[in-house]
Amino acid sequence: MEIIKYTEEHNIFRQSLRKFLEKEVVPYVDQWEEAGIVPKSVWKKMGDQGFLCMNVPEEYGGFGADFLYSVILSEELVRTGHTGLAAPLHSDVVVPYILSFGSEELKRQYLPPCVSGDAVSAIAMTEPNTGSDLASIRTTAVEDGDHVIVNGQKTFISNGINCDIVVLAVRDPKETNPYAAIDLYVVEASTPGFEKGRNLKKIGWHSQDTAELFFNDCRVPKKNRLGEKGSGFLMLMNKLQQERLMVCISAVPAAEHMLEMTIKYCQERQAFGKPISKFQNTQFKIVEMAADTKMARTFVDKLIVDHMEGKNIVVEVSMAKYWTTEMATRVADTCLQLHGGYGYCEEYAIARAWRDIRVMQIFAGTNEIMKTIAAKFMGL
Amino acid sequence: MEIIKYTEEHNIFRQSLRKFLEKEVVPYVDQWEEAGIVPKSVWKKMGDQGFLCMNVPEEYGGFGADFLYSVILSEELVRTGHTGLAAPLHSDVVVPYILSFGSEELKRQYLPPCVSGDAVSAIAMTEPNTGSDLASIRTTAVEDGDHVIVNGQKTFISNGINCDIVVLAVRDPKETNPYAAIDLYVVEASTPGFEKGRNLKKIGWHSQDTAELFFNDCRVPKKNRLGEKGSGFLMLMNKLQQERLMVCISAVPAAEHMLEMTIKYCQERQAFGKPISKFQNTQFKIVEMAADTKMARTFVDKLIVDHMEGKNIVVEVSMAKYWTTEMATRVADTCLQLHGGYGYCEEYAIARAWRDIRVMQIFAGTNEIMKTIAAKFMGL
Amino acid sequence: MEIIKYTEEHNIFRQSLRKFLEKEVVPYVDQWEEAGIVPKSVWKKMGDQGFLCMNVPEEYGGFGADFLYSVILSEELVRTGHTGLAAPLHSDVVVPYILSFGSEELKRQYLPPCVSGDAVSAIAMTEPNTGSDLASIRTTAVEDGDHVIVNGQKTFISNGINCDIVVLAVRDPKETNPYAAIDLYVVEASTPGFEKGRNLKKIGWHSQDTAELFFNDCRVPKKNRLGEKGSGFLMLMNKLQQERLMVCISAVPAAEHMLEMTIKYCQERQAFGKPISKFQNTQFKIVEMAADTKMARTFVDKLIVDHMEGKNIVVEVSMAKYWTTEMATRVADTCLQLHGGYGYCEEYAIARAWRDIRVMQIFAGTNEIMKTIAAKFMGL
Amino acid sequence: MEIIKYTEEHNIFRQSLRKFLEKEVVPYVDQWEEAGIVPKSVWKKMGDQGFLCMNVPEEYGGFGADFLYSVILSEELVRTGHTGLAAPLHSDVVVPYILSFGSEELKRQYLPPCVSGDAVSAIAMTEPNTGSDLASIRTTAVEDGDHVIVNGQKTFISNGINCDIVVLAVRDPKETNPYAAIDLYVVEASTPGFEKGRNLKKIGWHSQDTAELFFNDCRVPKKNRLGEKGSGFLMLMNKLQQERLMVCISAVPAAEHMLEMTIKYCQERQAFGKPISKFQNTQFKIVEMAADTKMARTFVDKLIVDHMEGKNIVVEVSMAKYWTTEMATRVADTCLQLHGGYGYCEEYAIARAWRDIRVMQIFAGTNEIMKTIAAKFMGL
Repeated sequence: MEIIKYTEEHNIFRQSLRKFLEKEVVPYVDQWEEAGIVPKSVWKKMGDQGFLCMNVPEEYGGFGADFLYSVILSEELVRTGHTGLAAPLHSDVVVPYILSFGSEELKRQYLPPCVSGDAVSAIAMTEPNTGSDLASIRTTAVEDGDHVIVNGQKTFISNGINCDIVVLAVRDPKETNPYAAIDLYVVEASTPGFEKGRNLKKIGWHSQDTAELFFNDCRVPKKNRLGEKGSGFLMLMNKLQQERLMVCISAVPAAEHMLEMTIKYCQERQAFGKPISKFQNTQFKIVEMAADTKMARTFVDKLIVDHMEGKNIVVEVSMAKYWTTEMATRVADTCLQLHGGYGYCEEYAIARAWRDIRVMQIFAGTNEIMKTIAAKFMGL
Repeated sequence: MEIIKYTEEHNIFRQSLRKFLEKEVVPYVDQWEEAGIVPKSVWKKMGDQGFLCMNVPEEYGGFGADFLYSVILSEELVRTGHTGLAAPLHSDVVVPYILSFGSEELKRQYLPPCVSGDAVSAIAMTEPNTGSDLASIRTTAVEDGDHVIVNGQKTFISNGINCDIVVLAVRDPKETNPYAAIDLYVVEASTPGFEKGRNLKKIGWHSQDTAELFFNDCRVPKKNRLGEKGSGFLMLMNKLQQERLMVCISAVPAAEHMLEMTIKYCQERQAFGKPISKFQNTQFKIVEMAADTKMARTFVDKLIVDHMEGKNIVVEVSMAKYWTTEMATRVADTCLQLHGGYGYCEEYAIARAWRDIRVMQIFAGTNEIMKTIAAKFMGL
Repeated sequence: MEIIKYTEEHNIFRQSLRKFLEKEVVPYVDQWEEAGIVPKSVWKKMGDQGFLCMNVPEEYGGFGADFLYSVILSEELVRTGHTGLAAPLHSDVVVPYILSFGSEELKRQYLPPCVSGDAVSAIAMTEPNTGSDLASIRTTAVEDGDHVIVNGQKTFISNGINCDIVVLAVRDPKETNPYAAIDLYVVEASTPGFEKGRNLKKIGWHSQDTAELFFNDCRVPKKNRLGEKGSGFLMLMNKLQQERLMVCISAVPAAEHMLEMTIKYCQERQAFGKPISKFQNTQFKIVEMAADTKMARTFVDKLIVDHMEGKNIVVEVSMAKYWTTEMATRVADTCLQLHGGYGYCEEYAIARAWRDIRVMQIFAGTNEIMKTIAAKFMGL
Repeated sequence: MEIIKYTEEHNIFRQSLRKFLEKEVVPYVDQWEEAGIVPKSVWKKMGDQGFLCMNVPEEYGGFGADFLYSVILSEELVRTGHTGLAAPLHSDVVVPYILSFGSEELKRQYLPPCVSGDAVSAIAMTEPNTGSDLASIRTTAVEDGDHVIVNGQKTFISNGINCDIVVLAVRDPKETNPYAAIDLYVVEASTPGFEKGRNLKKIGWHSQDTAELFFNDCRVPKKNRLGEKGSGFLMLMNKLQQERLMVCISAVPAAEHMLEMTIKYCQERQAFGKPISKFQNTQFKIVEMAADTKMARTFVDKLIVDHMEGKNIVVEVSMAKYWTTEMATRVADTCLQLHGGYGYCEEYAIARAWRDIRVMQIFAGTNEIMKTIAAKFMGL
């Protein structure tokens, strides 16, 4: 049985996307890794081809496409071995906040450029002193007439350099209930007082521009608030399911891709007079990795269907986020080892995959947080 | 989404089966464990209620039920914490050989008593010197007119004491190709020269009568051969998919059941002033086990559907057999540890489950054999 | 280098002990496992030969032997595959409380019969509702003239059926500081109000008589108290280092012994035309187990020397207790698997070792408690 | 007990070395990582201070120091977090070949510059098509009068760019026994036909200049051969014990250093209102890592003493090489995770350590080769 039923249209989309990526992304990976960022021109090309925010309704410039197009996009992007172009974050994590919770005015203002690739978006929750502990963020938004004045600092913000708009989590210092104090605002990068910090130097994921953001007396119009006053925490909770599911949707094809590369390598590489795929240790390791990836694939496919059916699967997604990212890291490590010395060299795709995949256990809520959430919702 | 679509009839069946097991099995578990065997009377009761060989067509006394009835039976049996009553082995592993490969005469002769519980069946492949290496079995069948004369020895035969008929793997010493030399015969336990050995004393699975079988000049009618001469190896290969899937269908609900017991225990048991379910280590362990069982459940459910659709899923089933049994063993071990000293005491279900589940990594082809098979069919 | 320097005397002792065990213990293991207890006569034989409480000074009937004799005894006992005869518990865990903290009168009264094997001892800390949480024990000792009146219940008490004297942890209900409330008393089994409960049925360690103990208005002379009033908790802390080190001293040779058996089995057992020791998976598993046991051996040998030098090694011993018992369990599991079906049969030593070794992660403080203690003493 | 007995002289040496490294190495790490190499000037400074080849006898310019000086140097270098300056490789792996097997003339010629830092050395065994399979190297040395003419290619050669002399493994094409065909020659980098290839771009260990080396009709004097003709394989076997022990001597302090950093971080970093060191998961992870490093430390210290005593510990060293490097990788991974997002940023030492340590499982014989060797010498 196929758990996900892809239509002919989905398959055609996948083919045209793959061609696009082979032409417009793959040849530039080295260059972008060196630069530590992807050029905005490639975002624009993505938008021109209709590869951004596909689920946004036509009235705001999109196609009203179903979630499977996002799944396909994420999978194909991962299989290029290049994940610095964080289009899924833009299309399936940040922009949905605006689509779901923005006023009609905000939607008309910000959705079309997000779809066209003229605006790159980011979401800014994490702060230097609050890893995954949202309730304790310190960036404040103080009311001042029609505006709020924002002061504070964010860090580890993906698309932090390229972003034109940011969905920003802030705290109202007058509200003592830490959960009711949180609001989300759409903030334009050009707003005075909003300053982008360094492009953080990471041990992998080199072409992703992950940065610190600073807000000094930054005036943001009240009308740029998403949802009701004080509903920020609830909105974040509401959207985290999809954010974390998106991580799984990257982690599983990444593991599959690494395994394919490694099987091919082991069948070609000779040692002690035979292909290394003929050694029992190699065979067992490959079978174990294949079993793990198949388990994960089946589970995540089912979660995709459940998610599209509107089910509350926060426990399952939290588990899948930790499980698939841990699994993908383990697969990367085993694949690297099977490559011997080549596995440690940048020119081999497995080497890059190894240092890139590691971040997945950390971002979008660390795996420890995932376990804590699952435990809580299981009533432990 | 539900991967398996159970009908109302399935659910009614499950309820009536559960009642039967609570009345006829659960109260006797201690007694049967002590005895090292289940009485044949319970087999007969199973048959009377229609709980054996449900998929056998009506013309041979059965119901022509679909495979999901077998799945339900296996799950419910496992959840009694009692797996010594190896009805799934009888109904879904041994009898299918007769149904698929037996002559009309054999089917008319042996299927009805198997359905009614008058005959308990076993399958005899393993020998003292050939673990999972079928091609090297030494039990021989030498032609002698309308009979073959069987000599040899089998071991680790489940239902070995209770069995009335045995599907026996033998070798024709005249055939030099080891794969073409294997035949399967239905042998009645009352045949002169067929002797049952000791009921092997095992470290768990105490009420399962697992035994050695001896054949000394045992004359078996040629007409009791299943399939064409020399087709034994192929028949075994053909049926192993279902045999191994049956293992998964036991392993997964066993893990789920152990986890449920353990969550309940941890929520009730206090230490250092709070329920032990409130300790972070306990929570993380439980979440990890829950994630593992959910992965396995989803994967095995999908395999059940694929199997019912007639797909060749030998690679996936081989992986699932090793993965789910290893997982269930790991879950048992963690659950035992969370029970502290009680986890080591026979009166706690988790203790029994721990020593019972371990055999699953060994029988029906060791997990090492599973990996070897998967590697072979993956073309490594 | 040899970390432990055994003398010629130590080696002679080891030889004579080994002969004794081969004659007086090994032939009876099956019988004792069946009985769930070892006969008191073997304790007496041990005492007659000078194999009990060897470190007790000559003035109390012992030899004033160094700790290495205890190490040798524990190792040799383990290598018989039989650990139900808990002489190390008696000699190196319980009796040292009397020796270190007993009054001269108590020492003269109780040490000689402990040395001679006329009295078997036990230590009773654990209660049904307090696993490893000593501060919350509920068994009370209320002062009444020259006696205390003890009421309460203990469980999981090793030597619980055979014991003639018990070192009993109680709480003084008048003392509100839970740590200062604990006292230890030497209680004779014949004291009215002291009742031995069931011999607990365990999944392994079958010949160890582990029992519940009940105290109903049991009058114990005040002079049977060990140490100063209120010093029970401190005495327990003081002695736990040696108790836990004794566990390591059993766990490591147990792992070594299982590995030796398994290497021998793998070199003899054939599969697919060669000894299974020739398969790469087998080789890697064996090497990994050998590496683990060598690591553990070296570390524990060093701890033995440090312990004999009087060092505070509570952090290291806590770590070693969890690490070596977890390792030994893992080794048992891998060894069992390499034995295939035989690994699950009682007649194979590896099968028994597998179900026996598991208790080590639980007793003498669960491994979770070990980690908690280590964390605390590391200042985390 | 202290397994290794360091003298006062050793301790003074360690202090002065530490000061040197803090002044001459630590401040330049970023710069050298960026450059992908360390400058030769720092090698010269090392030599000037007597920090190279300390065990070389005074007659060749060294100090005739014992092996513990090498241990100290390796440890202190590792604790700077900077391992690109591969002085231990030079002093304790390559140069010992010349010292042990070189003619008096070769020793007089090459040892003094190696001691003084005027010559950096490398060893060239690995070839593109022969990972750890020494017997199948293809680089040939054909006799031509007083010279041999070398043709072939080497790869993954540490110090490959900086090296002035190379100990080169070659094959005599006339010799059919692959083991007897191998010879080692000291080859000067300035020899015509010897060309250094690219400085390989690796995913970590950035300041180590690891390169390919090419030999095209490169004429090497016969007198530069080490040892008897055909003894190359034996010499390599002879020296591999120390090479692999050197890896352990780096891996263990690396793990210790990472753990120290992480404990400090966890005690300072707050989350959910308390230091993350107060969470049970953090505590258990830290204790587990501490236990692992202590096990490894004790074992490797003992191996150092055994090695100094001249014992054959090839089995133990092979095990230690795989065990300590796997452990150090695991520690790095857990430490990174405990650092959250910071663990993935280059500016945090743990991030660099994570991507640097990974190579240790591969070089000096992959961990799979270590297990194969151990299995062989264990007689499996």
